[in-house]
Amino acid sequence: MEAKHLNELAKIVGEDNLHSDKAHTIAYSYDATRERYEPEAVIFPRDEDDVSKIVRYCNEHKIAVVPRGAGSGFTGGALPTNGGIVLALEKHMNKILEIDMDNMVAVVQPGVINMDLQKAVEAKGLFYPPDPASQEYSTIGGNVSENAGGMRAAKYGITKDYVMAIRAVRPNGDIIRAGKRTIKDVAGYNIAGILIASEGTLAVITEITLKLIAKPKLKKSAMGIFPSVDMAMEAVYKTMASGVTPVAMEFLDNLTIRAVEQKFSKGLPTDAGAILITDVDGNLPEEIEYQMGVIERVFRENGCSEFKKARDDKEAADLWFARRNASQSITIYGNKKLNEDITVPRSMLPELLKHISDIANKYGLKIPCFGHTGDGNVHTNVMVDGSDPKQLEIGHKAIEEIFRITVDLGGTLSGEHGIGLSKAPFMHMAFTEEEMELFRDLKRAFDPNNILNPGKMAL
Amino acid sequence: MEAKHLNELAKIVGEDNLHSDKAHTIAYSYDATRERYEPEAVIFPRDEDDVSKIVRYCNEHKIAVVPRGAGSGFTGGALPTNGGIVLALEKHMNKILEIDMDNMVAVVQPGVINMDLQKAVEAKGLFYPPDPASQEYSTIGGNVSENAGGMRAAKYGITKDYVMAIRAVRPNGDIIRAGKRTIKDVAGYNIAGILIASEGTLAVITEITLKLIAKPKLKKSAMGIFPSVDMAMEAVYKTMASGVTPVAMEFLDNLTIRAVEQKFSKGLPTDAGAILITDVDGNLPEEIEYQMGVIERVFRENGCSEFKKARDDKEAADLWFARRNASQSITIYGNKKLNEDITVPRSMLPELLKHISDIANKYGLKIPCFGHTGDGNVHTNVMVDGSDPKQLEIGHKAIEEIFRITVDLGGTLSGEHGIGLSKAPFMHMAFTEEEMELFRDLKRAFDPNNILNPGKMAL
Repeated sequence: MEAKHLNELAKIVGEDNLHSDKAHTIAYSYDATRERYEPEAVIFPRDEDDVSKIVRYCNEHKIAVVPRGAGSGFTGGALPTNGGIVLALEKHMNKILEIDMDNMVAVVQPGVINMDLQKAVEAKGLFYPPDPASQEYSTIGGNVSENAGGMRAAKYGITKDYVMAIRAVRPNGDIIRAGKRTIKDVAGYNIAGILIASEGTLAVITEITLKLIAKPKLKKSAMGIFPSVDMAMEAVYKTMASGVTPVAMEFLDNLTIRAVEQKFSKGLPTDAGAILITDVDGNLPEEIEYQMGVIERVFRENGCSEFKKARDDKEAADLWFARRNASQSITIYGNKKLNEDITVPRSMLPELLKHISDIANKYGLKIPCFGHTGDGNVHTNVMVDGSDPKQLEIGHKAIEEIFRITVDLGGTLSGEHGIGLSKAPFMHMAFTEEEMELFRDLKRAFDPNNILNPGKMAL
Repeated sequence: MEAKHLNELAKIVGEDNLHSDKAHTIAYSYDATRERYEPEAVIFPRDEDDVSKIVRYCNEHKIAVVPRGAGSGFTGGALPTNGGIVLALEKHMNKILEIDMDNMVAVVQPGVINMDLQKAVEAKGLFYPPDPASQEYSTIGGNVSENAGGMRAAKYGITKDYVMAIRAVRPNGDIIRAGKRTIKDVAGYNIAGILIASEGTLAVITEITLKLIAKPKLKKSAMGIFPSVDMAMEAVYKTMASGVTPVAMEFLDNLTIRAVEQKFSKGLPTDAGAILITDVDGNLPEEIEYQMGVIERVFRENGCSEFKKARDDKEAADLWFARRNASQSITIYGNKKLNEDITVPRSMLPELLKHISDIANKYGLKIPCFGHTGDGNVHTNVMVDGSDPKQLEIGHKAIEEIFRITVDLGGTLSGEHGIGLSKAPFMHMAFTEEEMELFRDLKRAFDPNNILNPGKMAL
């Protein structure tokens, strides 16, 4: 980038908020994919007005702008693949602006960390359910841009179900208000809806209004042990169709169980085909008992050999231990994890898991699976030796076959991580050329010069 | 339209499915607004392939296409203001294609009537909550195109909360699949989201996949009588913020109560400032009692003078009678009803109702109000003598002031009816020129020749 551009941009945000030194450009060249693309500068906008001026300037001079929250995404959404600037929103634009108790709404800047919001609203008896695994560091702006999910999605839905309104800046600098602090609003096109999950490619989100709900007073956890994955997957979709909706319905396969046990020696059932861990909540003990009763019945009807109910918080934490430590434990199977978050209609889970097992056998790979089966979302981890190019190639072949099967079963390439860079090569499997063309038409309508997060989503 | 075009279109759908005779063009010139715009032809597509061919032909020859369900909209969304063809989807494309019990999903064609779907899924123990007042004749395609609400929105949300996937045809004839039968899907832009509430201006919806939930086993109704509207409105938002979420929280003001009583002599409290009618549901008697207990407490804390709980279905029907007959009863105040569905953040309801009362006094008008206060949605009815041009003018002035106040209170011009033709003149109050320009950019991205439902939404 020409020095003149850096000077002009520095005039907008002040010298302190624009950095083109190596320390900064390297620090902002990574995200959770560990791939690396160095930006030419990192800018910390102070407010929406800064964002508007920066983006307008970059649009006029065709400089790429990559909005970034915490950089915790798994698909490279915040990587500046085409150079230009990283617009880092976590430094100044990180305030909870309002918690409106009367309307049960929170208004936040994009750089607010998910867990900070959760804690702030829970202190007031309210509840913000979306809880991605990255909740302790990922930002609400990033959560909205990727439409993040989490453990509680089975009952409470995902980020999109809580976004009521968005303020955003278009590449031409226009400030757009989309949506309202009202439950219903059908005036004009649903601009907030299209910005959710748009991965920073359409506009820069500068403020988000989120729906809150009342925090349920009671919660209870249980674990079901199943002889086979197949039985567990049948139990999942039959539970979800039973009329009772658990908060979470998480799953670990045998490989994952064994990995956690090897690492932590917690007395897990290493001969089980799968375990399911579930939570129910409500305001009355009777509700909790009723829900647990239905779940236990459905589990047992589908082969559950043992159903353990937590009697207190400590026992609940013990039941959840295996799930919470699954991701770090499976590294015993390989130093490189090709981690995908495929999602299928719940009734397809048994078939999906069978196919993954076949693919693992065919390639001689370990593919431990765990995840949010309550909404059909399986974290599929193809474990390889990252230093062995041949293993990596085989691993990627397996991933491609898994994607193919997922799409054939009516599923999606991504339940919650997004497409970004990592999944862009597979978009053609999921979408027709006509559908991709519509995506491109939309991108052009928002961003005719293609300055916002260019090179993502196979656009 | 040139005869040659009619011939070509007839070749696509067959002679039986294209009509340009007066009987048809007049029958399809109306909707619930009672305004009249005659199309040049009415076409009944048999399937998605017909839709694709028709739309592509019309796009090539710049013929306006107005998709239509039941024509029950209140804002003229289905009126062919620019001539061209009405694409009437209710005749052939009216099938429930699938009810998938395992994934709790229904797949329907756009012409399916809302109530037919509700009955079909309830027969299987499932539940499709959106219940617009037009539910006995309005179609799911229309419901999606306007993002219809209903009585149960306070707890269960609106149409958009149930749309999982849409198949649609772009003006160029391209068939687009958007969304999946999965709870989560973040691959690609949220095309289904932008089609909801787009009023037939972006694409023709040909198939809809809807989320279903389990039908709660128990339901209970109650009515609260309040000395003033203000107290009732305080009770509404405080109930909604109490941690208990009633299925419905409907309201009638004094004018509406008196109108129903005058017409039906039901022993309603004609000196009450307002009544609230509420439903709670659940699977356990304890849940019902708990919710009713909280609601009664909040109501009484806010001045409720009498709280009547229905002991059985008959008593529930009695409590609901006034609400169900509100719309037809208020005609005692004038033969023409200027009916708007403004919506504000719930905590603004007291202020909104006060302003409406002031406006009524200022113009010497009767403006009975009732509606879905649980989601901040008030049906505001400016009653005038339709044969008196001066009264009509005054009525429209009052409406304009009501819209202004609504927007000032952070509300929206429309909670569930849409913009269409009727509210198009007020779009500039709610949106900046930059926001309107974004709507137009989106419209152009989908429909560069402006053939789909042209002239609507002030685009």
